[in-house]
Amino acid sequence: MLEKTTRMNYLYDFYQSLLTPKQRSYMSLYYLDDYSLGEIAEEYDVSRQAVYDNIKRTEAMLEEYEEKLLLFHKFQQRSKLIREMRTFLEEGSPSHQFLMEAVAELEKLD
Amino acid sequence: MLEKTTRMNYLYDFYQSLLTPKQRSYMSLYYLDDYSLGEIAEEYDVSRQAVYDNIKRTEAMLEEYEEKLLLFHKFQQRSKLIREMRTFLEEGSPSHQFLMEAVAELEKLD
Repeated sequence: MLEKTTRMNYLYDFYQSLLTPKQRSYMSLYYLDDYSLGEIAEEYDVSRQAVYDNIKRTEAMLEEYEEKLLLFHKFQQRSKLIREMRTFLEEGSPSHQFLMEAVAELEKLD
Repeated sequence: MLEKTTRMNYLYDFYQSLLTPKQRSYMSLYYLDDYSLGEIAEEYDVSRQAVYDNIKRTEAMLEEYEEKLLLFHKFQQRSKLIREMRTFLEEGSPSHQFLMEAVAELEKLD
């Protein structure tokens, strides 16, 4: 569940601009502010089931966007590379070859 | 016009997965294969006006996606940085400070 929450937080971060204002409100209360379904239902004066359905649909939409655009996936790959470069740079002078390879990888990811 | 064609080619590249199959066909014939509106109309047995309207709507959708997700904009910023790193690396050993700054910039762009 924690893993799913983290993933949804990321997907929400990447694709929130494609959601409706209501979808954004429910998702951010549920996933970022840790409200329960009941609390959101009370806040918006709708049934718990309506909130649940909306959030489930939104989660499916986010996964569909990720399937099509792969923003989270590419972000993870780039982050890993950038972190490696930072680590090598902080430890001293990384080899020229390592840096050239890292730059080539970054180009390919774009 | 050439500038617009280049921009549309990029936007199409980034967001084509969000278009319908018909939108993809028209756009790729028009922008990638340089068909005229009349030629596409003939190919699909529809009016020239129908092709024109579809392409105009698709162009507007692509610009809307770009306004929301900024994939092309971020790609341009990252590319510029990566090109600079590559140039410095190809010319010899870039300074440690330059590399640290470039990596920090890349992190911020993600």
